[in-house]
Amino acid sequence: MRTFIVVGHKATTSPNFSLEDIPGTSGRLDILCRCINGAFVLSHGIRHDAQIYLILLGGEKPKILWLRGEDIKHLNPDERTTAALLKKALALEAGPEWTQSTPGIFVRSGGLPEMVESIKALGSNLKYLREDGTDIRGAALPDGSSFILGDHVGMAPEEESLLKETGAEIISLGLVSLHADHCIVIINNELDRREKKSVT
Amino acid sequence: MRTFIVVGHKATTSPNFSLEDIPGTSGRLDILCRCINGAFVLSHGIRHDAQIYLILLGGEKPKILWLRGEDIKHLNPDERTTAALLKKALALEAGPEWTQSTPGIFVRSGGLPEMVESIKALGSNLKYLREDGTDIRGAALPDGSSFILGDHVGMAPEEESLLKETGAEIISLGLVSLHADHCIVIINNELDRREKKSVT
Repeated sequence: MRTFIVVGHKATTSPNFSLEDIPGTSGRLDILCRCINGAFVLSHGIRHDAQIYLILLGGEKPKILWLRGEDIKHLNPDERTTAALLKKALALEAGPEWTQSTPGIFVRSGGLPEMVESIKALGSNLKYLREDGTDIRGAALPDGSSFILGDHVGMAPEEESLLKETGAEIISLGLVSLHADHCIVIINNELDRREKKSVT
Repeated sequence: MRTFIVVGHKATTSPNFSLEDIPGTSGRLDILCRCINGAFVLSHGIRHDAQIYLILLGGEKPKILWLRGEDIKHLNPDERTTAALLKKALALEAGPEWTQSTPGIFVRSGGLPEMVESIKALGSNLKYLREDGTDIRGAALPDGSSFILGDHVGMAPEEESLLKETGAEIISLGLVSLHADHCIVIINNELDRREKKSVT
């Protein structure tokens, strides 16, 4: 299982954004839609062995969305269709337990601390993506690793401290600062190469 | 200069598609919008040393769109804004010479044969992306290489023959069949690593 976690610092927790202007009305939920595309979409199918958690911090009470490749349905590669799926999930009441929206899409209350607790409880190996980290091509990436990325705002110092306390290893994809969705595409390619994956 | 060429087999040559349903009304111009994002978009800017040609074959008379990083303006990462730029370019009369739409975006008539002629005239080294090619990590990628990719339909046998005649080298990113935009992201990462690029 490949796990991606993206922190959307301004991303709305409300379903009241416009599908006609996603970047301008949702706190850049468009970035997170592209991350979903990068995590799952293949030329002729989707990656059933991937999952992504989106931490939405642009509301009064943070929320986490969880999309699970194993059973996700209705996922198309375009941003608008993906945003419509997230809109449905955000219309649900979010408590401290997961609530399912459409198949494979879940929502709960919580932010980065709750996310980190869950990852620790699962014993997953946390990798934090930053330009000055260890080159991914030479890094150990045990099965079940989780990759955490910031959005366009980057991680705040207190978020970095939390990740450091958790023992997250800092991994780099190169010297150029890339969008989170592009990072996910490159990580998937690195993992495919290691697994010598040929299933499409 | 990095050059990407994407063949949109069903992509519309008309501006009469709906921004509310890009995948359903434009012959999958959404794929080409994501390719533009993959070619140019960085975390804090755009790649001025990249350009992309989109060959649109989903009309009566094929057209080529050219987006040049050197002077492109008004480019945002989201699909809808990009599609709106393409819509403007497609509203222009397309003759055998380039006509500029907005800054850095041009349109002309022509299909793959005309594109291949231009690339040959420039003396560019053509690389054709296919899963069974030489692994990109071990391939020679001279400065000025052009990378040609199919969209969701894949290349037709006569297109493959044309590329073969041109001496295009077949290059692979791995065994998994990926979307064209994801391929472009991975190629950019490989080129960044070789150039030890750190400008953001």
